[in-house]
Amino acid sequence: MPDAGPGRVAARLAELGLTLPAAAAPLAAYVPAVRSGAHVWTSGQLPFVDGALPVTGKVGTDVDQATATAQARTAALNALAAVGALLAAEAAAHGGGPVDPAAALDRVRRVVKVVGFVASDPAFTAQPAVVNGASLLLHDVLGDAGVHARSAVGVTVLPMDSPVEIEIVVETD
Amino acid sequence: MPDAGPGRVAARLAELGLTLPAAAAPLAAYVPAVRSGAHVWTSGQLPFVDGALPVTGKVGTDVDQATATAQARTAALNALAAVGALLAAEAAAHGGGPVDPAAALDRVRRVVKVVGFVASDPAFTAQPAVVNGASLLLHDVLGDAGVHARSAVGVTVLPMDSPVEIEIVVETD
Amino acid sequence: MPDAGPGRVAARLAELGLTLPAAAAPLAAYVPAVRSGAHVWTSGQLPFVDGALPVTGKVGTDVDQATATAQARTAALNALAAVGALLAAEAAAHGGGPVDPAAALDRVRRVVKVVGFVASDPAFTAQPAVVNGASLLLHDVLGDAGVHARSAVGVTVLPMDSPVEIEIVVETD
Repeated sequence: MPDAGPGRVAARLAELGLTLPAAAAPLAAYVPAVRSGAHVWTSGQLPFVDGALPVTGKVGTDVDQATATAQARTAALNALAAVGALLAAEAAAHGGGPVDPAAALDRVRRVVKVVGFVASDPAFTAQPAVVNGASLLLHDVLGDAGVHARSAVGVTVLPMDSPVEIEIVVETD
Repeated sequence: MPDAGPGRVAARLAELGLTLPAAAAPLAAYVPAVRSGAHVWTSGQLPFVDGALPVTGKVGTDVDQATATAQARTAALNALAAVGALLAAEAAAHGGGPVDPAAALDRVRRVVKVVGFVASDPAFTAQPAVVNGASLLLHDVLGDAGVHARSAVGVTVLPMDSPVEIEIVVETD
Repeated sequence: MPDAGPGRVAARLAELGLTLPAAAAPLAAYVPAVRSGAHVWTSGQLPFVDGALPVTGKVGTDVDQATATAQARTAALNALAAVGALLAAEAAAHGGGPVDPAAALDRVRRVVKVVGFVASDPAFTAQPAVVNGASLLLHDVLGDAGVHARSAVGVTVLPMDSPVEIEIVVETD
């Protein structure tokens, strides 16, 4: 992918056959993403597709590793959608009319941190492989700017019995 | 609540019938809150009241959802107390004598991120509803400045068998 | 320990009989540490020694509290190694030839936040005592600059069945 130039993220998403979803509505009294200084922090993202979780349960028993990895990829795409929606709203607020969230992602300078929570059977220990679904999506879409520090953790249960939850912090121009 | 003006947070706390507790002493070799640049990061806060946990156990079995939600509200109040104590100490260090921690919270420009850990039975999946106790407290006390990005996660067990733990990052003036 | 002066962290490590390990290779598509502005964020660090985990399993059943505390200390040393390697690479990139990672840690102005995940039996509630192994290591090596905000959480399972995982955020000069 080109390292610079307007529209590079939108072009890369298209090349990958990905569509940035509408940012998920929060489940409660909070928002999908907040800017503070040069950073955007997202809420923990579940792998919603069209408002529903395609898969639920614990990884290692109800959900196999490959399926969970794909779900982590979806959750990371939703995290990018949350960032893109915020950046698009900022651009619109500064004039110039509506902005496409995918185009607004050109402003992401670096994904700083990813935390991946995996709802795990106590015997399942491949959380890094699962969260890698998120890491590779970020690299696929953003190139070098998508390379991040990361924690992968196995938890008891996630909201709505989701198998994975992904939160990210990004630095923007 | 008024969006600006000195004493607005203290007035809002009084209106809500809330008293900012003394910041909890850390359980080990760390501090309740640290400033770095424009941000204050808190330690994970348990729902201590007068130095004790009113409720212990796992949510979904030992502790019901409504009780856990109230505990998350208490933990968030303790997080604000940790921030207020640090801001008050900073104000005192810059001269002018003692400062009330509630009054010092006027400097909070935005709650950036909340992470809520809920000690959960594996079948309990309403972590967002529980952590909403924290989210609503922050909005009740701080208004728009209290709206944040958030992650809610169900974990095996928390320190001292607490049902919830809340950590926050805030941006200040 | 001296509060200032070049080489103070390397001297302190030697005094403690500690050697900064080579930064662990990431298990997947991410890096051990990322700089953003004045901060360095690490990936979650496991207590690897020479590329292997000396102890695996859940704390409270497979692993006792004292052993887990020692493992948290090792994971924190690995987190410092990740920070030191990044700072050394930055120094080398700015000219002047190779830099020792321990010497590069002189640039750490403050450890801002530590999150300690402890793979726990549901009945084990002394996560703060375990994570204290990490907190004390940071204080031992960095003095006042090592005092941080902290969360300690008990999770179901960690990567490779590690008993602990430690992530840190530091502010640098």
